[in-house]
Amino acid sequence: MPLKLPALDPAEVPERRASMYPEPFRSRMGERVKRRLGDACGITRFGVNLVTLGPGGQSALRHWHTLEDEFVYVLEGEVVLVTEGGEQTLRAGMCAGYPAGKRDAHHFINRGSVPARYLEIGNRIEGDNAFYPDDDLMWGFDEKGEYAAHKNGRRYE
Amino acid sequence: MPLKLPALDPAEVPERRASMYPEPFRSRMGERVKRRLGDACGITRFGVNLVTLGPGGQSALRHWHTLEDEFVYVLEGEVVLVTEGGEQTLRAGMCAGYPAGKRDAHHFINRGSVPARYLEIGNRIEGDNAFYPDDDLMWGFDEKGEYAAHKNGRRYE
Repeated sequence: MPLKLPALDPAEVPERRASMYPEPFRSRMGERVKRRLGDACGITRFGVNLVTLGPGGQSALRHWHTLEDEFVYVLEGEVVLVTEGGEQTLRAGMCAGYPAGKRDAHHFINRGSVPARYLEIGNRIEGDNAFYPDDDLMWGFDEKGEYAAHKNGRRYE
Repeated sequence: MPLKLPALDPAEVPERRASMYPEPFRSRMGERVKRRLGDACGITRFGVNLVTLGPGGQSALRHWHTLEDEFVYVLEGEVVLVTEGGEQTLRAGMCAGYPAGKRDAHHFINRGSVPARYLEIGNRIEGDNAFYPDDDLMWGFDEKGEYAAHKNGRRYE
């Protein structure tokens, strides 16, 4: 019997492969597929994505947020967490949390040979920003909204 | 090698068996053990609990929140979700989301013979309230904070 809201089978939620990053960053994410479970349930105050990350893929560029708390819980496979403190391997059942404003940029890399799967959760809040210590990227704002820029302000085309 | 923050092995997080409900409601929760993973990682804008619910246990009294979005993801075993729309069984890998302000009171019951395990996530916000359509319970406020009361306002002792 198919589930009805408020319950949901994640397999019924559309897959999203898009990335907002310009090249050459977008391709680095590799085989990264997200299902927006929180949105599919109609919740708005935080997002919950089920992410499948193929071998060689990355969760994001290494970054930290000014106003968004983030939390990740590994469901299957294995990922390498990279932070200022170095690397740690997280297996299924392990988790990590990144407090807003903490200047400890982080991301996951799948260095294994099988896909990894995890939940990523973040609160939604106006005015959040993210910083990328390893990459020449920032977000600018104009009257049409956000745009990707080099750190010197020049837009990515 | 033990994980270091921002990563965490949930097995290292203390178990909590407390319930804020007065009797006779507290006992109905049964064998319900929570680990506060989000708090353990230092995040504050939402809570993430890993919950183990024994056979016969309940996640909560059936309730809805005014200002808190909630999301649950089943990791192991099976739970019955009870809402105004009836009952549905959720197995590992299924989820549910409860938008703030939606008057569809919900809870999980473990009707199986083995423990179920799930993640529960909710945003934190001042002034949230919860309502319990099936039970003679509400929360009052005085100068010392919140207290459990009957729906007519008389305190539970």
